[in-house]
Amino acid sequence: MSRAESDAVRGQGSVRVLGLGPGRAEQLTDEARAALERADHVLGYHTYLARLPALQGKLLEGKTLHGSDNGDELVRARHALELAAEGAHVALVSGGDPGVFGMAAAVFEALDGAPDAQRALDVAVLPGVTAMLAAAARLGAPLGNDFCAINLSDNLKPWALIERRLELAAQAGFVIALYNPASRARPAQIHSAFERLRAHRAASAPVAFAKAVGRPDEELVVTTLGEADPSHADMRTLVVVGSEATRRIERPSGPAWLYTPRSIDGAS
Amino acid sequence: MSRAESDAVRGQGSVRVLGLGPGRAEQLTDEARAALERADHVLGYHTYLARLPALQGKLLEGKTLHGSDNGDELVRARHALELAAEGAHVALVSGGDPGVFGMAAAVFEALDGAPDAQRALDVAVLPGVTAMLAAAARLGAPLGNDFCAINLSDNLKPWALIERRLELAAQAGFVIALYNPASRARPAQIHSAFERLRAHRAASAPVAFAKAVGRPDEELVVTTLGEADPSHADMRTLVVVGSEATRRIERPSGPAWLYTPRSIDGAS
Repeated sequence: MSRAESDAVRGQGSVRVLGLGPGRAEQLTDEARAALERADHVLGYHTYLARLPALQGKLLEGKTLHGSDNGDELVRARHALELAAEGAHVALVSGGDPGVFGMAAAVFEALDGAPDAQRALDVAVLPGVTAMLAAAARLGAPLGNDFCAINLSDNLKPWALIERRLELAAQAGFVIALYNPASRARPAQIHSAFERLRAHRAASAPVAFAKAVGRPDEELVVTTLGEADPSHADMRTLVVVGSEATRRIERPSGPAWLYTPRSIDGAS
Repeated sequence: MSRAESDAVRGQGSVRVLGLGPGRAEQLTDEARAALERADHVLGYHTYLARLPALQGKLLEGKTLHGSDNGDELVRARHALELAAEGAHVALVSGGDPGVFGMAAAVFEALDGAPDAQRALDVAVLPGVTAMLAAAARLGAPLGNDFCAINLSDNLKPWALIERRLELAAQAGFVIALYNPASRARPAQIHSAFERLRAHRAASAPVAFAKAVGRPDEELVVTTLGEADPSHADMRTLVVVGSEATRRIERPSGPAWLYTPRSIDGAS
């Protein structure tokens, strides 16, 4: 690289779209931590920014934090791109993994159709441990066979499509991870979702409600599709709907484990 | 905790089922690193054990490594439980995340029906960045809307079930991540899988072959369902089949980005 090129790279801003993992500092990757440490500006949902002091090795001194509300993703993504275009290093944070119902899609929506100069920016996504993986680890191995992830919020897609996906996923025998299962504005949909699932899957299929996994107030409820009370779900809950193959192991003490065997009948 | 209880805990073995992440040391979590450092025995597929010296901060001195072949998962899991029952700290490693087509399901298969003493062991799964998340991050945000993960190997399930899952997933509009798309023993199945997908999804849907993501020989091929050559896939490849909503963004330089918008028509 020539001297001039190297100067140009030094002067260039960057956007790192990163995941904070499920919540505990030990579940952050080194590269996400390094991107936070390097950032001049950190943008994200208020709740996630509030976790930073505990997650980061170094202090936040010298960094500008830009907290915004949930739902402002596209505005936040555009703001990040503008700051980077001015030469700043920007960290855009999501909980879990930014590629799974997080900030990454919003950044590329903002870049799609943007001028060449923005599309030439140094943008990278740094993966993290998404809620589904963290919840599965605490429960055992419910995602041990084929599975799907469905965002239950109908803020950005029709409810009829969500219901169709639930039905087809149940018919396919997928273990189903439900993100954003309920909120104060959508308390009833998780009940409709469970009705739909019960029509296509045995009542004995295991179900788990994993709330605030990796946080001090973590709560795990392990039940069955037939007996599950969908009211257990809130915005901080990841719901795992096991398949008919998913099994439960009782332990001498502590909650039961769930796992989905790798083998399915009919294989050699 | 009383003195006697604390002595008992000190004398107890443990099993930590952990994910090494996609490959680079920076994508390992702190808790997975700590579990490796604490382990007396490390068990895993030869290929993953070979990565340990580069991944671990401290040396492997004093640890016993037990490499075994791919396919020996249940034997390896039972071995881990036996060592822990004798009081050893055991790390059982998978690539990516152990809960996604990794060692976690094998451990719970081994525990299911095992004597109380084994089920009382200190067993925990430590999540990691699975291949699908690492590949998605390198590609942009293809998993930005609902998606599924299908293990294309028919070693442990009937091929007819895999084809049915592919069809239903395509009909549901899921973005589809294909794990283990091909091997020397199964070179033809990925071609059958693509035929199945082409029957249910537009030829214009973006497709990516992400090989050895996070490794020095990483290779990304971005194409469409109609034009994709399934021969690109091997055991180290994660295939992402975009939905009809998945979009491609050309960049002034470098490969195109893929992302799946959060919004789907018909939403408010």
